[in-house]
Amino acid sequence: MPDVRIVLVEPSHPGNIGGAARAMKTMGLNSLALVNPKRFPDPQADWRAAGALDIVEQATICDTIAEAVQDSVLVAGTSARARHIPWPLMTSAAFAEFVHTNFAEDDSVSILFGREDNGLTNDELNLCNRHIRIPASEQYGSINLAMSVQIVAYDLFCQTLSKEIPVSDAEAWDKPLATFAEVHDFLEHLQSVLLQIGFSDPDEPRKAEVRLQRLFNRIEMDHTEVQILRGILTHIEKELASDSLSREIEKQQDNG
Amino acid sequence: MPDVRIVLVEPSHPGNIGGAARAMKTMGLNSLALVNPKRFPDPQADWRAAGALDIVEQATICDTIAEAVQDSVLVAGTSARARHIPWPLMTSAAFAEFVHTNFAEDDSVSILFGREDNGLTNDELNLCNRHIRIPASEQYGSINLAMSVQIVAYDLFCQTLSKEIPVSDAEAWDKPLATFAEVHDFLEHLQSVLLQIGFSDPDEPRKAEVRLQRLFNRIEMDHTEVQILRGILTHIEKELASDSLSREIEKQQDNG
Repeated sequence: MPDVRIVLVEPSHPGNIGGAARAMKTMGLNSLALVNPKRFPDPQADWRAAGALDIVEQATICDTIAEAVQDSVLVAGTSARARHIPWPLMTSAAFAEFVHTNFAEDDSVSILFGREDNGLTNDELNLCNRHIRIPASEQYGSINLAMSVQIVAYDLFCQTLSKEIPVSDAEAWDKPLATFAEVHDFLEHLQSVLLQIGFSDPDEPRKAEVRLQRLFNRIEMDHTEVQILRGILTHIEKELASDSLSREIEKQQDNG
Repeated sequence: MPDVRIVLVEPSHPGNIGGAARAMKTMGLNSLALVNPKRFPDPQADWRAAGALDIVEQATICDTIAEAVQDSVLVAGTSARARHIPWPLMTSAAFAEFVHTNFAEDDSVSILFGREDNGLTNDELNLCNRHIRIPASEQYGSINLAMSVQIVAYDLFCQTLSKEIPVSDAEAWDKPLATFAEVHDFLEHLQSVLLQIGFSDPDEPRKAEVRLQRLFNRIEMDHTEVQILRGILTHIEKELASDSLSREIEKQQDNG
């Protein structure tokens, strides 16, 4: 992933500078430039930065956008508005993929974020190679400045992750999954207990048994979970046996 | 997309409640529940909510998580920690896809976000069907609470977008793209002008011409852009012709 610089153009609220810095650091970015910030430095920026104070302290302060991005080979501007002359426009996710695919590690890429109230002017957007739009609700699309930085940085960070991340993080599971045979034996065991306790009738199988089968097949149990369930079944059987033994003894005592 | 409720568990800073509400609304979510908020209502929550004040005002206040999620068919908890007993864990993006694929519009889905300092407890995480992890930097993974809501809501919102969004938003372009013939004629015209101004030498073609060809082919010009460039070339030719006419007249005058 190339060296990505976040450029905040004339931010009004120092809290947003701190929030943007923290957002950047959580996603592995650390180069922040501020073009004519209204209030900076400011305790509010430091407070919102939390563990990303270093990024706030190392931020470059510039008078112009040109100064902030002069060494960048790609300059992108975030924009919520439709423009009079269309510009190459990408979603945040598509931009992240574009950067990851087309630029090298030592390429400098700058991303401009505009003012809290008015964004970037048309003249500022015209300085850019690409425009970025963050998809948002048509009813209310006003994403906070630091939040916008968070989303764009998140999309960039996701590009650096392995594409092989499993939907369910099976590798991090602590026990091996149960085999078909283990689950099958458990279901047989369960069926046997259901008969013993009078839940199932051998002459009239019910839909409930199929539903239990479906349930235990669906949840993809691990080896240990099956063993725990088998243990419970065995305990039920022992308890039933000792009960029946007690009853037998009682009967014999009654008869005796 | 099902009805998604955001549940903030014991948030400390009212600013985060407002920030979360605004984040939700920008991504089309509006159902917010607060479990034992420390300071609420609070002007700081209202201020950070900006145009999402309605969500803050309509937030449900609950004493327990169970109360907040009782009608939900899926409850997910955000977690940054590795747990002693692994739980089904998904990235934020995978969770969004899972919800979009597997649940209906009238299903209630709740997503829990824990305390600013400590997240959710293990007992709270055990209430969940799924755990969500937002990918973050290993050096500093402390994502602000409202920012976490923004990312999870953004991933959910992206699922509702058409998968057909073009990388470059070609549909929104104002002019039709130039045809091969238009670009070809322009390049011929350009070459002719380059010869007239002495940039090109007909006996020794240079690499520069090929580079110009590559440049103008690469940028995928539209019809209007090609016409503008052709207009410039024509003006150059006219100017050259009138210069050469002037010189001719001057020469004749000198000779006369």
